[in-house]
Amino acid sequence: MFLVNGRYADSISVLDRGLHYGDGLFETIAILNGKPLCWEEHYQRLAQGCDRLGLCCPPVDQLYAELRQLPLGPGRNVIKMILTRGQGGRGYQPPAADLPPTRILGLYPWPETSPEYPVTGVKIRICATRLGGNTQLAGIKHLNRLEQILARREWSEPDIAEGLMLDHQDAIVEGTMSNLFCITGSDLFTPELSDCGVAGIIRGCILRLAPALGLKTRIFKFGRTVLAAVDEVFLCNSLIGIWPVRQIEEQGYQPGPWTKKIRQELIRREMIAT
Amino acid sequence: MFLVNGRYADSISVLDRGLHYGDGLFETIAILNGKPLCWEEHYQRLAQGCDRLGLCCPPVDQLYAELRQLPLGPGRNVIKMILTRGQGGRGYQPPAADLPPTRILGLYPWPETSPEYPVTGVKIRICATRLGGNTQLAGIKHLNRLEQILARREWSEPDIAEGLMLDHQDAIVEGTMSNLFCITGSDLFTPELSDCGVAGIIRGCILRLAPALGLKTRIFKFGRTVLAAVDEVFLCNSLIGIWPVRQIEEQGYQPGPWTKKIRQELIRREMIAT
Repeated sequence: MFLVNGRYADSISVLDRGLHYGDGLFETIAILNGKPLCWEEHYQRLAQGCDRLGLCCPPVDQLYAELRQLPLGPGRNVIKMILTRGQGGRGYQPPAADLPPTRILGLYPWPETSPEYPVTGVKIRICATRLGGNTQLAGIKHLNRLEQILARREWSEPDIAEGLMLDHQDAIVEGTMSNLFCITGSDLFTPELSDCGVAGIIRGCILRLAPALGLKTRIFKFGRTVLAAVDEVFLCNSLIGIWPVRQIEEQGYQPGPWTKKIRQELIRREMIAT
Repeated sequence: MFLVNGRYADSISVLDRGLHYGDGLFETIAILNGKPLCWEEHYQRLAQGCDRLGLCCPPVDQLYAELRQLPLGPGRNVIKMILTRGQGGRGYQPPAADLPPTRILGLYPWPETSPEYPVTGVKIRICATRLGGNTQLAGIKHLNRLEQILARREWSEPDIAEGLMLDHQDAIVEGTMSNLFCITGSDLFTPELSDCGVAGIIRGCILRLAPALGLKTRIFKFGRTVLAAVDEVFLCNSLIGIWPVRQIEEQGYQPGPWTKKIRQELIRREMIAT
């Protein structure tokens, strides 16, 4: 079920710049018993993305009201919220900046992944497809996602839950749909995303709450050799919550106590639904 | 006027992966008195792009027949042909590879640029927005075009006709909507596009026909300092044809004889319409 600019619809204009150029942004929001989790954080990232692309971000109240127009509950559901630069003619030059973007809100079922993953952990791989760098696009959740699609096409084994992507300097950036964290002792660290990658909402939540749990946090660039020397590895995003990693290629891990503690804290604070 | 999968339409499904991820390709084709110019070359690039993205390219006869369904003539018009991976659920993983892509053909008016440009030349700038590298996406005309949009947003002066884009190693790649050629003596050269950029149809035509005109061709990576020491510079694409460059930032040029000769040859062979 979709709302396009506040009205129920199953189509958008063939002139929309989202289609022609991927000229827009999106958010994927977990809904738990009718409540959108981390709504403010999602809106903030959307607003930051609008700022980067020169889009006029709709008011938070408008987007929230439209979100509530959809039948959100009970149980777990997903809202995908897309903003595009709206309709345009041919050519890259955007129309005037003060035109309102197209708002597309879709209600989706909760994804079917194994309920064991958050507890027993997942097996992941390292993708050959690299992420190109662009500081203007780094961090935001824009609609240019061919790199993720090419990476996701690299495997079809159902027991591989995710693939890690590197940049052109061999630094680990993120999973195709998730962010990566590592823990050594009481040090929690995650890749820097200044050149590429999406600054995930749950990644941000974890970085904010970790010090109160007794973890020191660090954000920096590191390569895959670092993965051989860490105690715990986990993935996160708004829908999967936290998945401990139990295997990356040939390297094995045990789902560890810090990962479990972080996940419980995120659930307790209603930041994740799973 | 648009055809979506062979039917007149002004909208596409809100589930289309072209909208959600820029998961597709496009071609912009000059139409002269009802005839699509360089049709075979456009189709070949589309097929190459499909191969890279794992899309099932529609048969050439089907796309040609649909193109002819639109009122193409007389005079000059533009067809934009978009192929997307079609409708899909949420998530990057593409549906099965043998599903037919969505075909979107649009008829547009010829762009209104100064008729003087191909003769007197244009003033261009160098953009701050860089092109990120990805060998799998380099050369093809995919729908992830945010870098070009950010670059095109950098200027609004009507007398600046185009902006050049560099990669992260400071090599010149292309214009936001065109390819670049330089001439020194009887040497014709253009940037290598192995990491990023679009391998333009007219760029390909020029590289093929230049030797017969008496030019030696070279394709390599070069930085902006090279621009200070060349005799002629020009831009090309399927709609602008050839634009001699008369100014890049502070550096001036004269529209030169080789540029004129190449343009005349492209017109004579019905590769460009202007």
